[in-house]
Amino acid sequence: MPRVGIVMGSDSDLKVMSKAAVMLEELGIDYEMTIISAHREPDELIAWTRTAEERGMKVMIAGAGMAAALPGMCAALFALPVIGVPLSGKNLDGMDAVFSIMQMPPGVPVATVAIDGAKNAALLAAKILAASDGELLDKLKAYTAKMKEEVQAKAAKLDEIGYEAYLNR
Amino acid sequence: MPRVGIVMGSDSDLKVMSKAAVMLEELGIDYEMTIISAHREPDELIAWTRTAEERGMKVMIAGAGMAAALPGMCAALFALPVIGVPLSGKNLDGMDAVFSIMQMPPGVPVATVAIDGAKNAALLAAKILAASDGELLDKLKAYTAKMKEEVQAKAAKLDEIGYEAYLNR
Amino acid sequence: MPRVGIVMGSDSDLKVMSKAAVMLEELGIDYEMTIISAHREPDELIAWTRTAEERGMKVMIAGAGMAAALPGMCAALFALPVIGVPLSGKNLDGMDAVFSIMQMPPGVPVATVAIDGAKNAALLAAKILAASDGELLDKLKAYTAKMKEEVQAKAAKLDEIGYEAYLNR
Amino acid sequence: MPRVGIVMGSDSDLKVMSKAAVMLEELGIDYEMTIISAHREPDELIAWTRTAEERGMKVMIAGAGMAAALPGMCAALFALPVIGVPLSGKNLDGMDAVFSIMQMPPGVPVATVAIDGAKNAALLAAKILAASDGELLDKLKAYTAKMKEEVQAKAAKLDEIGYEAYLNR
Amino acid sequence: MPRVGIVMGSDSDLKVMSKAAVMLEELGIDYEMTIISAHREPDELIAWTRTAEERGMKVMIAGAGMAAALPGMCAALFALPVIGVPLSGKNLDGMDAVFSIMQMPPGVPVATVAIDGAKNAALLAAKILAASDGELLDKLKAYTAKMKEEVQAKAAKLDEIGYEAYLNR
Amino acid sequence: MPRVGIVMGSDSDLKVMSKAAVMLEELGIDYEMTIISAHREPDELIAWTRTAEERGMKVMIAGAGMAAALPGMCAALFALPVIGVPLSGKNLDGMDAVFSIMQMPPGVPVATVAIDGAKNAALLAAKILAASDGELLDKLKAYTAKMKEEVQAKAAKLDEIGYEAYLNR
Amino acid sequence: MPRVGIVMGSDSDLKVMSKAAVMLEELGIDYEMTIISAHREPDELIAWTRTAEERGMKVMIAGAGMAAALPGMCAALFALPVIGVPLSGKNLDGMDAVFSIMQMPPGVPVATVAIDGAKNAALLAAKILAASDGELLDKLKAYTAKMKEEVQAKAAKLDEIGYEAYLNR
Amino acid sequence: MPRVGIVMGSDSDLKVMSKAAVMLEELGIDYEMTIISAHREPDELIAWTRTAEERGMKVMIAGAGMAAALPGMCAALFALPVIGVPLSGKNLDGMDAVFSIMQMPPGVPVATVAIDGAKNAALLAAKILAASDGELLDKLKAYTAKMKEEVQAKAAKLDEIGYEAYLNR
Repeated sequence: MPRVGIVMGSDSDLKVMSKAAVMLEELGIDYEMTIISAHREPDELIAWTRTAEERGMKVMIAGAGMAAALPGMCAALFALPVIGVPLSGKNLDGMDAVFSIMQMPPGVPVATVAIDGAKNAALLAAKILAASDGELLDKLKAYTAKMKEEVQAKAAKLDEIGYEAYLNR
Repeated sequence: MPRVGIVMGSDSDLKVMSKAAVMLEELGIDYEMTIISAHREPDELIAWTRTAEERGMKVMIAGAGMAAALPGMCAALFALPVIGVPLSGKNLDGMDAVFSIMQMPPGVPVATVAIDGAKNAALLAAKILAASDGELLDKLKAYTAKMKEEVQAKAAKLDEIGYEAYLNR
Repeated sequence: MPRVGIVMGSDSDLKVMSKAAVMLEELGIDYEMTIISAHREPDELIAWTRTAEERGMKVMIAGAGMAAALPGMCAALFALPVIGVPLSGKNLDGMDAVFSIMQMPPGVPVATVAIDGAKNAALLAAKILAASDGELLDKLKAYTAKMKEEVQAKAAKLDEIGYEAYLNR
Repeated sequence: MPRVGIVMGSDSDLKVMSKAAVMLEELGIDYEMTIISAHREPDELIAWTRTAEERGMKVMIAGAGMAAALPGMCAALFALPVIGVPLSGKNLDGMDAVFSIMQMPPGVPVATVAIDGAKNAALLAAKILAASDGELLDKLKAYTAKMKEEVQAKAAKLDEIGYEAYLNR
Repeated sequence: MPRVGIVMGSDSDLKVMSKAAVMLEELGIDYEMTIISAHREPDELIAWTRTAEERGMKVMIAGAGMAAALPGMCAALFALPVIGVPLSGKNLDGMDAVFSIMQMPPGVPVATVAIDGAKNAALLAAKILAASDGELLDKLKAYTAKMKEEVQAKAAKLDEIGYEAYLNR
Repeated sequence: MPRVGIVMGSDSDLKVMSKAAVMLEELGIDYEMTIISAHREPDELIAWTRTAEERGMKVMIAGAGMAAALPGMCAALFALPVIGVPLSGKNLDGMDAVFSIMQMPPGVPVATVAIDGAKNAALLAAKILAASDGELLDKLKAYTAKMKEEVQAKAAKLDEIGYEAYLNR
Repeated sequence: MPRVGIVMGSDSDLKVMSKAAVMLEELGIDYEMTIISAHREPDELIAWTRTAEERGMKVMIAGAGMAAALPGMCAALFALPVIGVPLSGKNLDGMDAVFSIMQMPPGVPVATVAIDGAKNAALLAAKILAASDGELLDKLKAYTAKMKEEVQAKAAKLDEIGYEAYLNR
Repeated sequence: MPRVGIVMGSDSDLKVMSKAAVMLEELGIDYEMTIISAHREPDELIAWTRTAEERGMKVMIAGAGMAAALPGMCAALFALPVIGVPLSGKNLDGMDAVFSIMQMPPGVPVATVAIDGAKNAALLAAKILAASDGELLDKLKAYTAKMKEEVQAKAAKLDEIGYEAYLNR
């Protein structure tokens, strides 16, 4: 039973949003992923969101660009946490989506991550699940340790070969 | 039967949005006005918007601030024109609402007016109705003529008394 | 007799603005389309705009970039609805045009759509005409239904083949 | 044992951040609240954050203004979810804090809420806890229902007494 | 015969724009000043602007806020220099007017000064006239010398009494 | 004797700034053009600017990007009009230069044109000279007439061949 | 002999800039402070800046608002570090000054601090001097320790009396 | 013993940050350079920064993008001057990093340079060292003189061959 739902407003969002799926898979978290346009399919949005809890969903990740109503409407209809991913488009560098997702009115929060930050959305979803899942928490700590090692390895490499060689690898 | 619907996301929007009502009254256009929060009452929004056409509504005016999903969701649910009024709040001068209302995806337009531009929203609604209502079109032309006369009167006054006296009136 | 007029400030705007023409054609709405620069041809602008009503025009779509005076001047001269399309250019992502078009003073509204949103401008024009044209309203509802089906088909495809295959189509 | 920690960078943030405490109290959620400046007390930050998990903390709410490093550093040091509240100050309407909190690099997410959105931060913390606490989930659903009723009551009042009377209450 | 024309879009602009008049008077330059709304009185704008040259006008100062079409339309209709003053309003700190005035398309320049910079507009007009008026050029040089002396006097005062006394004057 | 001076802060500005030279040549106006960095050669800037008047210069065009001090320092040192051209660079779309050039303090105006608007800077310089040069004024009017004809020819072409053929030329 | 120079563009900047003087006094650092307008007194600026080194000055703090050329011109004329303080004004929240000060071209750096950050400018100047002054370095470490204690005292107070009492002190 | 430390948050920053190394080498200043992520390796950051002074470091250059906590955290942990380099990324042109670096709270300054301004960071570091190193000060003056000569050579070239030939070199 998927504990995380990933929803995006358009299939043009898939290239970025699939990074959330990749991250969840790496952490061994079951998810479902779909495309629902808040503005083109309000009924589908309501049906999918209202039944999410009974399908076992604990966290929802919603990505959208421009006047990104999707994450906020998910948060209006789903009682558990909704993570919003503002997506950049042809103009405005994603600031239209940031304001549409982050500036929610009192009472209906959306957990907004960085512009195009689908990977972080998945990690945030994992952290939320880890609040009651010690095994997952250990995986997250291991992931954090691995990230640290990767940076350290890069620093050691830079120290070893110098910046010119590093840039020319 | 009201031809125009005015909807806003919160009663804190009423001070600005009531200017739309005043303008419609001046033009003799029937309207209904209510408060519906897209994020707090999605079902009410759907019920009110989906039945608007059969209640006789030809144009909808939706005002909201911050992550202003209301106008876009109205446009998703109402087949006739929706006019969006971005409202300014404590921060950001209304730019959050502008992006949330104006940057609609292809297929679902919202007619966005100026920040806090509720009066212009009413005039735009009237222009839309006037496309098939010659009497209303005449009223709008008269309104435009009156505006012009008012500016001319001010210019004449300035010319007559000079800027110091004008500023000290 | 064309019910919609499309006007743009420069032939460099045609690539985006022609999307409005395509959309109107798809909906079977007669239109006229021309190029008039508010700043280079004020007399032509006045002549074209002032006679638009008697030529049968019910809605005007005006697209412009930078200090985009065209939509606002059309609204000053044409009593029926004017839809403004802010166009992006080399710098500023179209925000110069947004402010020049959306921030109209009280009394002279312009219905602003998204940056480069010419297609939505056409749909908004159609919605305006549909307020007194039941047949067109039916076409718009069919268009909305078709959009919904297209998104559903994409979601089904994604569900069927998975995100990797979907991205590699 | 407090399940939520509230931390802010300065006591000048308390007026806004205390709204998170009020909301948590309303939902019956134990919390601890303190002031730690990331830039003035890095050691305290590390000590408090690194021991938070063993003190029983499941979610952290971090509010800061300007170059708001606090939420991100908390997320670097605490394995469970961190919610960031960007605070507005004398200049920039909180956009400096938004960018400092929301634009986290891949691997270290912060759940950003609206500018000055401390109340929503508390609700988001509650939603996160509710993912494994059915009783709290019921409270949240009741809270949402109450919000809906409050808007409906306002709409009914507006309908009953009209906008002039409503504004003059 | 006035060599400078001052025009503004609304009498609410007079408080700022009158500073241009004060400055021109100080330099002994004849001017005419009026209120013309580009969006409410296009015919008056054309009449006033097209006859300005024959009335002896050499430079025009046009101030407007929001979607400030006035300066650009003056530049479209008047062959000599037009100076634009972007005016700040309730929202956006005048950036809407800056973009509407400064971002003119190739072929039709407007000389834009600072937001609310009416005094500088007058000085720029004087500099333009001084290009062929040696006496006025001398006055401008004297004005510049006086400004310098004023700053020097303030610096001397600060040096004499210290910053505490200076701030408490 | 050159009546116009063109100065830019770096030879990387030449590609844009040379458009001013081309325009002046087209209007038959003598000019001198050079590169002076306000921040790297303050003495050269002072020497060049302070002697400009005696060399016959009536108007100065100064183009610069980033923290564009050049136009303002020219205005501090040259008693006649200075036109500033904000140049876009790798980041910020030229807004850094706009603010550095346009937001001059009271007493020292710079006539700011559009971002990268070197051609308009030349036309503005010509308009300034034309205030006392009837022959040049006639040339400017002819230029304006030609621009109008060009737009009309494009509109006629579009009307003749349709948008598809026009876009595929 | 003053090791730090404080210069500002106008006496209206003194209220903010005097905070730099207060901080330097607290650290026992000799300074000189004056008002010089880059745009109104270029010669004074050059004279003061070019002789600063021989007067013993090691660091310069330059504060200015709007098109803030002063810090950059100081950096062009003074070989040692220049710290720039962007000052907020009536519009734009100091972003005009930020861009004018921070975006210096390669070769001529200005050390920019926060908007209205005069106190931090003084601390940065002290840090620069402390690079070769062990006694001052100790004072700075003591200052940092004191800041830490102040925050700890506030946190203890909040813990002791609770947020309601804290806010009502 | 290196007097300058260069630290960056990711190896993707190396291309820009290596310009600081190149500049320091040109001036003959010893430096150490490494990669430390504030958000992924807080302990490494503390270890490296806290021991920097005893390793002989007098100035630190910290470059980072997005929510750039690195420079501010360095300033929290290192008593001597920290120079921050805001780095541009995929979105926002580096403004997220500018706000995260420049807007430091009172007490903990960061010397911010231009977006992607690593070369200027190195020059600023050299100016800081030159406050107590006369030989380095002479080198900086020679560097400044060379820059001036380079611009003069370009201006002479432009004067000699004209803009067309210059652009076609």
